[in-house]
Amino acid sequence: MKASRLLEGRSDFVIEELPDPAPGPGTVVVRVEAAFLPTYFAALVAGAFPVTPARPFTTGQCAIGVVESVGDGVSGALVGRQVYCDLYLESPGVDVPRDYGFIGCFGPEPDARRMLDRWPDGSFAQKVLLPRECVVPVPADIGVAPAVLCRLGWLGTACAGLERGGFVPGARVAIGGASGVLGTSAVLVALAMGAGEVAACGRRPHIIETLTGLDPRVTAGDGDDRFDVVLECSGGPDTARTEALIGRLRRGGTAVIVGELEAPLSVDSGPLMAAELAVRGSFWFERDVPRRLLALAATGTLDLSGIEAEVFPLERINEALARSVEASGGLRHVALACNQ
Amino acid sequence: MKASRLLEGRSDFVIEELPDPAPGPGTVVVRVEAAFLPTYFAALVAGAFPVTPARPFTTGQCAIGVVESVGDGVSGALVGRQVYCDLYLESPGVDVPRDYGFIGCFGPEPDARRMLDRWPDGSFAQKVLLPRECVVPVPADIGVAPAVLCRLGWLGTACAGLERGGFVPGARVAIGGASGVLGTSAVLVALAMGAGEVAACGRRPHIIETLTGLDPRVTAGDGDDRFDVVLECSGGPDTARTEALIGRLRRGGTAVIVGELEAPLSVDSGPLMAAELAVRGSFWFERDVPRRLLALAATGTLDLSGIEAEVFPLERINEALARSVEASGGLRHVALACNQ
Amino acid sequence: MKASRLLEGRSDFVIEELPDPAPGPGTVVVRVEAAFLPTYFAALVAGAFPVTPARPFTTGQCAIGVVESVGDGVSGALVGRQVYCDLYLESPGVDVPRDYGFIGCFGPEPDARRMLDRWPDGSFAQKVLLPRECVVPVPADIGVAPAVLCRLGWLGTACAGLERGGFVPGARVAIGGASGVLGTSAVLVALAMGAGEVAACGRRPHIIETLTGLDPRVTAGDGDDRFDVVLECSGGPDTARTEALIGRLRRGGTAVIVGELEAPLSVDSGPLMAAELAVRGSFWFERDVPRRLLALAATGTLDLSGIEAEVFPLERINEALARSVEASGGLRHVALACNQ
Amino acid sequence: MKASRLLEGRSDFVIEELPDPAPGPGTVVVRVEAAFLPTYFAALVAGAFPVTPARPFTTGQCAIGVVESVGDGVSGALVGRQVYCDLYLESPGVDVPRDYGFIGCFGPEPDARRMLDRWPDGSFAQKVLLPRECVVPVPADIGVAPAVLCRLGWLGTACAGLERGGFVPGARVAIGGASGVLGTSAVLVALAMGAGEVAACGRRPHIIETLTGLDPRVTAGDGDDRFDVVLECSGGPDTARTEALIGRLRRGGTAVIVGELEAPLSVDSGPLMAAELAVRGSFWFERDVPRRLLALAATGTLDLSGIEAEVFPLERINEALARSVEASGGLRHVALACNQ
Repeated sequence: MKASRLLEGRSDFVIEELPDPAPGPGTVVVRVEAAFLPTYFAALVAGAFPVTPARPFTTGQCAIGVVESVGDGVSGALVGRQVYCDLYLESPGVDVPRDYGFIGCFGPEPDARRMLDRWPDGSFAQKVLLPRECVVPVPADIGVAPAVLCRLGWLGTACAGLERGGFVPGARVAIGGASGVLGTSAVLVALAMGAGEVAACGRRPHIIETLTGLDPRVTAGDGDDRFDVVLECSGGPDTARTEALIGRLRRGGTAVIVGELEAPLSVDSGPLMAAELAVRGSFWFERDVPRRLLALAATGTLDLSGIEAEVFPLERINEALARSVEASGGLRHVALACNQ
Repeated sequence: MKASRLLEGRSDFVIEELPDPAPGPGTVVVRVEAAFLPTYFAALVAGAFPVTPARPFTTGQCAIGVVESVGDGVSGALVGRQVYCDLYLESPGVDVPRDYGFIGCFGPEPDARRMLDRWPDGSFAQKVLLPRECVVPVPADIGVAPAVLCRLGWLGTACAGLERGGFVPGARVAIGGASGVLGTSAVLVALAMGAGEVAACGRRPHIIETLTGLDPRVTAGDGDDRFDVVLECSGGPDTARTEALIGRLRRGGTAVIVGELEAPLSVDSGPLMAAELAVRGSFWFERDVPRRLLALAATGTLDLSGIEAEVFPLERINEALARSVEASGGLRHVALACNQ
Repeated sequence: MKASRLLEGRSDFVIEELPDPAPGPGTVVVRVEAAFLPTYFAALVAGAFPVTPARPFTTGQCAIGVVESVGDGVSGALVGRQVYCDLYLESPGVDVPRDYGFIGCFGPEPDARRMLDRWPDGSFAQKVLLPRECVVPVPADIGVAPAVLCRLGWLGTACAGLERGGFVPGARVAIGGASGVLGTSAVLVALAMGAGEVAACGRRPHIIETLTGLDPRVTAGDGDDRFDVVLECSGGPDTARTEALIGRLRRGGTAVIVGELEAPLSVDSGPLMAAELAVRGSFWFERDVPRRLLALAATGTLDLSGIEAEVFPLERINEALARSVEASGGLRHVALACNQ
Repeated sequence: MKASRLLEGRSDFVIEELPDPAPGPGTVVVRVEAAFLPTYFAALVAGAFPVTPARPFTTGQCAIGVVESVGDGVSGALVGRQVYCDLYLESPGVDVPRDYGFIGCFGPEPDARRMLDRWPDGSFAQKVLLPRECVVPVPADIGVAPAVLCRLGWLGTACAGLERGGFVPGARVAIGGASGVLGTSAVLVALAMGAGEVAACGRRPHIIETLTGLDPRVTAGDGDDRFDVVLECSGGPDTARTEALIGRLRRGGTAVIVGELEAPLSVDSGPLMAAELAVRGSFWFERDVPRRLLALAATGTLDLSGIEAEVFPLERINEALARSVEASGGLRHVALACNQ
C-alpha cells in the first residue's frame, strides 16, 4: 500500500510503498476513504513537536474508511462497515503515569512515548491498523461525504468541551475563536445539541456573518448578555478576549479551554469565588461522543451541509498541507482522499 | 376580579367575584392570559384528591400572564413582563418533613397541607398572587400564543425527566405513552434537546403517525433497537408495556417514570444489576427548565406549531373541563382565557 | 434584648437594648448561645465593605442557639431544638440579577442590597430572627460546645469546596493555607470525609505539625506527589503558592478557591487543556452540608476536640474582635456567648 | 507452575502442573499470594454457570500478588510491586455488543464469550497472566495480610454501589443483607467513606451485634428513620425486605442492588415519582475504586482488622471450597494461599 512517511532529516512527506498491515488480536484494518489534514501538521512535519513516534513513521489524524479485516476477539460484523477512525488512544491502568495521545501523531506529555512506540502509524495511508476501540461505525444512511465527515474529531472536541462545561439544552453558549475550524465546528454542534443562544465571537467578520445566518440562535456576541458556558476555541498569544469572555459568565458558569492559548490566563479569583465560576481545560472526548454526533448528522440535526472540504489525493499531500495552512478556516478544511 | 372557586359540598366550579389580590413582600400579582386545564382536574373537582387546600379556594395550574404589580424585595423590572406561572412550590429547609405541591391544587403527601394553607389560590382567575420564584419571564419575541405556551409544565416535566435519566445530545430515547398530552410534549422536547432517535411508543396510531412525520429521528418504536433513556409518560393499570421498555434499555440506561402507573412495576433485579440499569421517578422540574425551554421555543428549535389549544373563557370553565376530559390527548389540549 | 449595633459614623460595636424580635410567617426566633467572630469583621466594622445593610444594624455570622418561637407555616416541632444558624440567604428566582449574601453582614455584589434591606440584623445579639431555611437542627447528643460548633460555616465551606472539586472517598487532597482557621477546618473535614491523603500546606510550622499529628493521612505536603483536589484556603496577595499547587494536580484534578486571593491567578492553559484540569471558585454551601457535618460531629467521625474557642460575653464584643484579629488562626477562634 | 483446573466432565478442581505464563504486549505476570474463594464457586465448579471459558481452564477471582514480569508497553516499575489483581475485564468499543465479565470465571451475558475465550485463566494458580489494567499497586506499608486484602472486590462492589447511589459524606445509609460477606464489607466501607449513619439490616443477630459494636454510627436499622441510600447486598428469593428498605428512602434517595435477588422486585411507581426515588443495579466497579480503598486501608481509615480469613493452600482447594460454603459469612471468608 501507499503511505505518506515522515523521515529522519526531512521536513516534508514522502510517499512510500509499504506492506499492507495485517490485523492482530483486538485490532482492525481500515481502508481509508478520507483523512482530515489540520494546519498544525505543518509544525509536526517540521519536527516542532517534542513527543512523536520515532521517524520513519506514517502520520495522520481523524479519518473515515471501511473496515477491511479484523483480528481475533473482534466481531466480524464490523467488516465492510464504514467507520470513523479516532486516532486518540490512552493506555489503561491507574496510579501510574498515563500515556495518551494520537496514534501516528503526538502526545502532550513524555509518557505518551510508550503508546506511540507501540502504535506509530496513522491514517495518511491507503490502510491503517488500529485498536478496535478506535473505530466507531457510521450510520448506513448518513449522506455526508467522507471528506466532510473526517472533521469529526473537531466536532467531537467541541461537543465534549461544551458538556464538560455543564452544557444543558437551552443553555446560553459563547464560542471564542468562532471563525476558526474548531470554532465553526463548535457553533454547528451547539446548535444540534439544543443550545438556547450561541454567541459566535471571532475575528473574521464574513465567517461570523455566515454563522449568524445559519439559525436565529446564533449572534455575533457583541452585546452584554451573559453566558452559561464559554468554549474558547482560539489559540495564539492574545488572552484578553478569553479573559473578557470569562468575565461574561453567569453565576455558576464555566469557561472551557479547547484552543491552544500561548500565554497564561489571568484569572481574578474574587469573582471566581463569589460567582462560583470555573475555568477548565478539555482534551479530545470519550468514544461515545462521535457515536452521538454521527446519529445527529445522519438525520440532519447536526447540519454539516455548510462545510466545504478541499480534497487532495494522498500523493499530493505536501501540496495539500500547504493549502491547509493557507486556506483552512471557518467552514473550510482540507482532506486527503487516500485511495484515489 | 372573577375567579373559579371550588366550594364545600359541590363538584363543579363556581365563578365568583373576589377582591383583587395585593402583592406582599416577595410576591407578584399576575394578570392571567391563559391557563392550562388538565383532565385530572375532573377528579380534583370531584373531591377525589386527598391533599388539597381547604374549600373554598381558587384552583388552577400552569399559566401565562403579565405581571401587574410586585411586592417589597422584588425587582420592579418584572412589571409588565409576560411570564410563565409555575404553581409548584416547596417549603425551604432540610431535615424536617418537606411540604411541596401545587398552589391552588394538591400535594402528593400530607405534609403539603402547610404550604397549601398558605397558598390556597391558583390561576383559574383573572389574577393570581404568587411567590416571586414561581414566575419565569417569557422572551419578548416568542411568537407562541399563551393558550399554547401554558402547556409548559408538561414540556418541562418531560425535559426534567429526560435529564434525570441521563439524557445527552444524540441519545436514543423511547417515550412510553407517546400519544398522550405528556407523551407528545416529550417527543417535541426530546427533538429540541438533540435526541439522536425518539421512539414514540403509544396506543393511538394516528397520533404516532403525526409524530413520526415531524422529524426523521422519530420512529414508532416497534423495532428491536435499544434505548439510552426511556421516559414513561403513560398512566393506568397496565405496566406490561413499561416493563417491556425497561427490557429494551442499553447497558447503563435509565427508565424514568413521569406518568401515574396504578399498579406496581415488576422489576427483574438480574439484568438491573448485570446491565447497571436504573428505574427512577421524576416529579416536575427545577425552575431553570422553563427558562431553557422558553429560549428554545423563542427560536423555533422547540417547535410548538403542531400544538392545538382549544380555548374557553373563564366563565365557561365547567364546559371546558368536560371538553378537556373528552378531547385532550396528543397535541391537543384545553386552555382557559381568563380575561376575555 | 441586648444587641451589638453598628452605627453610622462609628467604627466599633455599640451594645443597645432593642425589642425582642417576633416571628412572622416562615420565620423563627433563635436565642443565641454562641456566635462565631471572624477576623474579617474588623474590616466590616471599619466600614470597608461596600455592600452591607444600612447602619444602624445588628451584625453577626454563624451561630448556635435554641429556637424560641416560630411563625406561621413553620413546624412547631422546632421550638426548643438546638440549631445551627446559617446566615447565608439568597433570593429565589431565575433569570433576574440574583441577590445573595449574609444576613446582618454583607453581600459580594450590589444586588445583595435587596436581601440585606429585608434582613439587616444578624446573630450578635441575644436573639435573632431568621427565615426558617436558615436553621438546621443539631443532633441531641452532639456533645460539642456551642462556642466550638459555631465554626460550622467554615467547616461547611471546606466540605462544599472539596465536593465541588470532585472529592471522592480515598481522594488525595491538598489544603492550601492549612494553618489558618479555614484551612485547619478543611483538614478536619477532609479526614472525616474519607480522604486518602491530606497534604496540609501552610506557613505556620507549629500548626502544620499539630495537624500531621492528628492522623497518619495528614502530611506537610512538601513531597512531590500529586493531588486529585486542591482546596486553596489562604488569602492575601501571594498567588505563587496557589499556582504551585495547581501545578501538582493529577490529570482531571480540580483546584477550588475558597480563600480571598487579592491578586489574579496566572493559569497556564497548556497543562489545563492537556491534563484536563479545572480551577473553580466556591462560595459557602448548600444547606444539606451542615446537616451532614453535624451528623459526623455527633459520632466523633468529624473530630472537633482539637478546636479551641476563646469565649467572650456579648458585652465585650469590641475586646473579642481585637482578640480575634490577634489570636485567631489554626485551631483557635473567638466566639461570643450572647446570653451570658 | 501449579494451577487448579476445571475439566470437562468433572465437578471438582484438579491441580495440574502447567508451564509458567509469559507476558505479551500490555500484560503482566503476577505471582499469587492469596486469592479470594467466594461461595458461588460451588455452582461454577458444578457447571451451573452458562457463560464461562471452555473447559479445561484455570478459574479464580480477586487476588493479591507480586508482579513478576511485564510485557512490552508496560512500565518496568511495576515489577516487584505488590498488586491487587482485579479479574474484571470488558472489551473496548462502543455501539457493538459489549462483552464483559471475570477472567477465568464467568460473564453475565453470552457476549462475554469473546473476552473469556481470549482470557480463560484466572488466579487460582501460582501465577496469573493479566492485562496491565487489571492490576492496582498496593501501598508499601499497608500492613494487611494478603488473605484479608483479597476480599477487595467485595469492598469495591460496596463502594461503587454506594457512590452510584449518590452517597455523600454524612449520608444516612442502610445496608440490606448486612450479615453476609458483601454486607459486612459494605458496612466497613460506608464507615470509611464518612457515612453519617449505617443501618446494618441482616438476619444473623450475632453478626449485626458485632457490627453495631464497631462504631457509634452503626445501628441495627430497626427504627423508623429514613435513608439517603439503600445498598441491597442480600440474595435469595425473598424480596420483601428489599421492598421495605426502598419504602424507607428519603425524598430523592436511591436503592442500589448489588446482591443476586432471585425474584422480581415489586416497585410502586407512585412514591417513586412523588418522592423522586430510584432503584438501580450496580455491577463491580471502576479501577479507581480499589486504588482509593487501598489508600484508606493503608492508614486504617478503612479498618479491616475485624476480618477473619481462613487460609488453605492451593492444593487443598476442594476442601477450601467446601469450607467456604459452610463457614463464609459476616466478617469471615476463605482464601487460597497459592504459593505455600
